Amino acid sequence: MNKRIIAISRQFGSGGRTIGKETADKLGIHCYDSELIEKIAEESGFAKEYIAERGEYTSGGNWFAGALSERDFYGHSNQDSLWIVQRKIILELAEKEDCVIVGRCADYILREREDCLRVFVYADMEKRADRIVKQYGERSVSPEKRLRDKDKRRAAYYQFYTEWKWGDVQNYHLALNSGLIGIDKCVDIIAQLC
Amino acid sequence: MNKRIIAISRQFGSGGRTIGKETADKLGIHCYDSELIEKIAEESGFAKEYIAERGEYTSGGNWFAGALSERDFYGHSNQDSLWIVQRKIILELAEKEDCVIVGRCADYILREREDCLRVFVYADMEKRADRIVKQYGERSVSPEKRLRDKDKRRAAYYQFYTEWKWGDVQNYHLALNSGLIGIDKCVDIIAQLC
Repeated sequence: MNKRIIAISRQFGSGGRTIGKETADKLGIHCYDSELIEKIAEESGFAKEYIAERGEYTSGGNWFAGALSERDFYGHSNQDSLWIVQRKIILELAEKEDCVIVGRCADYILREREDCLRVFVYADMEKRADRIVKQYGERSVSPEKRLRDKDKRRAAYYQFYTEWKWGDVQNYHLALNSGLIGIDKCVDIIAQLC
Repeated sequence: MNKRIIAISRQFGSGGRTIGKETADKLGIHCYDSELIEKIAEESGFAKEYIAERGEYTSGGNWFAGALSERDFYGHSNQDSLWIVQRKIILELAEKEDCVIVGRCADYILREREDCLRVFVYADMEKRADRIVKQYGERSVSPEKRLRDKDKRRAAYYQFYTEWKWGDVQNYHLALNSGLIGIDKCVDIIAQLC
């Protein structure tokens, strides 16, 4: 298929980031995840923490109302400005080099590129809960509650900035259940499509 | 992963049947599709045409009301009797030999088998429409209408006899967009998981 760019969309806790990194290593190309945040920070002036959180998630609560009301003279919210920079950088990266891009609506942003493979990585709640507890530790709220909240806010962000429903497999070349087939097999499958 | 049995669920017109057959050939195992219908016919006494149609699809119209009312002394409809035989044969096959089983809720029926790989094959409406016109020819109704009708009746059947939502990727090891990645790559990916 000779795809040059791999856009990985993933459920929180599914290991999508690790799969992106390991696929990039296997292919000898760059994986843009935290480095993408750095690039966006340089260009936008926003803090990395703000980009990490607000470049993929709504703030929760009555976010839609806020997103529609809190806008500057040009009708942009901070999150809109972040979206514009993020989109520009992702388009430039895809033009410039073969790479893996994790999250940040890259699948949607690069939808018209024939050379972009769009992958959705998911897993069941139990496996994701184990993973986030191992990775980020226990919190006062249960891992299941944290996952439901993340899923909800990511889906709302995606819906607001794209015309796609987040996680709808019809928009992807393939969807992989990392909890059932394992990280290594996911990497092998994605790599063989490039 | 050493999966012995592959249960392929597919959208009508996605080429799932061809993928099942070619994967079985590649692995040197049997693919049960039309042969499954023959086995069910022998054991149930139902006509092959009836099994082909009613072993995966509701009859449309107000089917749920019919399915709940038209029942024999034991509370079974013909379609229930067919479901019972179909389920029994699929469980026996999985016990007896390594194989690929296409459709017929085999994914759900074999859900507790660790050695069963559950795959969902799909494609976009345009590609599926092209495929069914090539395969089954033109009809008075448009291919898109035929596909929507088939999808609706298959989903209704699945929902009635299983506790799963048809096509929900969470129930599968992986989901493959045959329209975007092609039949051959789908076969390669499935085969490498066995």
